[in-house]
Amino acid sequence: MCCAVCDGELRTAHRQRLKDEEGDLHGSGEYRCHKILVTLHQDQLKTTTTVAANRDFPEDRIWLNGKEDNINHPRLQSCLREIRRLARKRRSSGDDNISKILNYKVHICSVNNFPTAAGLASSAAGYACLVYSLARLYGVEGELSEIARQGSGSACRSMYGGFVQWIMGEREDGKDSLAQQVEPENHWPELRILILVASAEKKHVGSTAGMQTSVKTSPLLKHRAESVVPGRMEEMIEAIKKKDFEAFGQLTMKDSNQFHATCLDTYPPIFYLNQVSQRIIGLVHRYNAYYGTTKIAYSFDAGPNAVIFTLDPTVNEFVEIVKRSFPPESNGDPYLKGLAVSPVSLSQDLLSAVETDVFPGGVSYVIVTQPGPGPMESQDISVDLLGTDGFPNASG
Amino acid sequence: MCCAVCDGELRTAHRQRLKDEEGDLHGSGEYRCHKILVTLHQDQLKTTTTVAANRDFPEDRIWLNGKEDNINHPRLQSCLREIRRLARKRRSSGDDNISKILNYKVHICSVNNFPTAAGLASSAAGYACLVYSLARLYGVEGELSEIARQGSGSACRSMYGGFVQWIMGEREDGKDSLAQQVEPENHWPELRILILVASAEKKHVGSTAGMQTSVKTSPLLKHRAESVVPGRMEEMIEAIKKKDFEAFGQLTMKDSNQFHATCLDTYPPIFYLNQVSQRIIGLVHRYNAYYGTTKIAYSFDAGPNAVIFTLDPTVNEFVEIVKRSFPPESNGDPYLKGLAVSPVSLSQDLLSAVETDVFPGGVSYVIVTQPGPGPMESQDISVDLLGTDGFPNASG
Repeated sequence: MCCAVCDGELRTAHRQRLKDEEGDLHGSGEYRCHKILVTLHQDQLKTTTTVAANRDFPEDRIWLNGKEDNINHPRLQSCLREIRRLARKRRSSGDDNISKILNYKVHICSVNNFPTAAGLASSAAGYACLVYSLARLYGVEGELSEIARQGSGSACRSMYGGFVQWIMGEREDGKDSLAQQVEPENHWPELRILILVASAEKKHVGSTAGMQTSVKTSPLLKHRAESVVPGRMEEMIEAIKKKDFEAFGQLTMKDSNQFHATCLDTYPPIFYLNQVSQRIIGLVHRYNAYYGTTKIAYSFDAGPNAVIFTLDPTVNEFVEIVKRSFPPESNGDPYLKGLAVSPVSLSQDLLSAVETDVFPGGVSYVIVTQPGPGPMESQDISVDLLGTDGFPNASG
Repeated sequence: MCCAVCDGELRTAHRQRLKDEEGDLHGSGEYRCHKILVTLHQDQLKTTTTVAANRDFPEDRIWLNGKEDNINHPRLQSCLREIRRLARKRRSSGDDNISKILNYKVHICSVNNFPTAAGLASSAAGYACLVYSLARLYGVEGELSEIARQGSGSACRSMYGGFVQWIMGEREDGKDSLAQQVEPENHWPELRILILVASAEKKHVGSTAGMQTSVKTSPLLKHRAESVVPGRMEEMIEAIKKKDFEAFGQLTMKDSNQFHATCLDTYPPIFYLNQVSQRIIGLVHRYNAYYGTTKIAYSFDAGPNAVIFTLDPTVNEFVEIVKRSFPPESNGDPYLKGLAVSPVSLSQDLLSAVETDVFPGGVSYVIVTQPGPGPMESQDISVDLLGTDGFPNASG
């Protein structure tokens, strides 16, 4: 059984006060991050997960990207427990096969085709995919995002395709995280998303730990959450619905910058943007200034990689500029991955308007993609990661 | 005639609403930046200016750092006009010599011994020094900071030594800028200031232009000005008065970070901190974490150079760490300038706690200095920059 998910973010973060069940306000960490996200297409960025249950397995085990990992991780255990609980509850309706495998242990095998923990929301995709796969195994249908979010707070939004509104929770266990679809993946067919991979280094600060420190120490974050983001959220949803790229792009960039501003206002400060990120930001603004309109927008999550939004007719030209500004270092790997890009020649005017110093190797590679659906079951047996013996095969 | 000034900043920026003469609020740009600054000692960082008036000079002229510059610059003209106006007003009290030279044109020659326009407040020091020199020439005494601020909004604070409170103005002409001394330069004798020169490149965005864009576009700046800085200003003055380095250092760092956060929240965003700045910030926090107390603080103005504050007993050790982290590239120039630093050996414990990757050449050189007095007239004729013919000599 296998599924494929991934997502990029066009962030509009927002933290709102959260009431607990008794109606009281929580303590210091009472803000919730509110975002709009785009699920990326699995043809380009995907997590593939295979799960198998067998009477001969003595224990639950998991392999991630080719190495066995700790099955006792609390978030993982929480997902497993929850989905088994749901499956048991529904068993009464009677599928003997399900009853049987609920007594078996499982083997889980998962691989990403993009760098883990480098700000590409790998854990969100991973948990979403895992929960989806387990649900198929145990025949659980319906609302899975509640289970997924027990793995990673952000996983619940990866259960949906297209444009997703996500209210991130505060809790370690992700139980207060909520997601819903704003528009499906085919709503804005011209929209393209380019991932400029600036570095595959593991980031210094995980996004969960970083956000918790920001909530505690950044005086600007509270203001951002209460006074800036609510208005931007509404404008963003409106811009998506109207397919208004000018508004969409500006909001995306302003909000990304403000998120990183609150990281810098954290004590000690957190830097996710490196010099390559800064150069990409400069390049985008010069490009837009040349055309006098927002043709390109950037967003950076908890890492240096740029998520670039644009419309189909601009892709070829912008990719050409990125290639000239950050020429590939010839290590044999392809520089362009994903959707096809055609070479174009650039006018001298445009070049002198946007170019500054060339930075070879600053961008390792570019993934060209578009909005995509949520997790899907693959019918293609060749993508299975577990062999007939229940252990990872060559691709797992 | 010559004078020597310079200053580093321990910034506590604050923008407060400004009432104009009629008591109305100004329009969009109504915030005033409120800071505490330290004037640096002229033994290490100085601007030297010589002015001369002569009946044979056909016109006013100025040379800056060895090259003739535009005497018609509006700010410069404003300073000249204002000081001549003051001199004329006081002439009634009768000095024939002053009356005479008021009819002459002047030659001005000024040099900095530190990089211009790289975030070391060169224009503040330059205008302060110019105004002081012209005042001596024309025999104008008393309050000069009002004139200096017509040159550079920040120049008025360079008219004072020691710890200075500065309410920066909004106006292009600097007329709404105010400064006053908090404590004199000998108040905190153990305080040391290290300038880590990260880059002598000209900065992309001047600090005045940058601030004006921030006021117009950053939603976080308004909140910072109204709700964060006023409290910090009071705490900072208290920390200086009590010589409480822990409080002083933390406030300095938090406020520097928040200033750069609002630069990032500006649209398009402004980056003054480069990768060297980011590494220095990381190093300082690891060093303080190792000792469990704030022994070092950093502040960055509108550029990548770090202004480091510490107390005398920490200087040797920290300089050694900077030297190891950013080893000098052997171009023959001295790496350490200013006050004497003694080599020390570092414990293995400390090294493994603070060090990461080594970045050769990241810091070009380090200036070790301390708080200093305001502008002073030099009695040493050998520092004169204009020869007996009224034109720049070899040192000008």
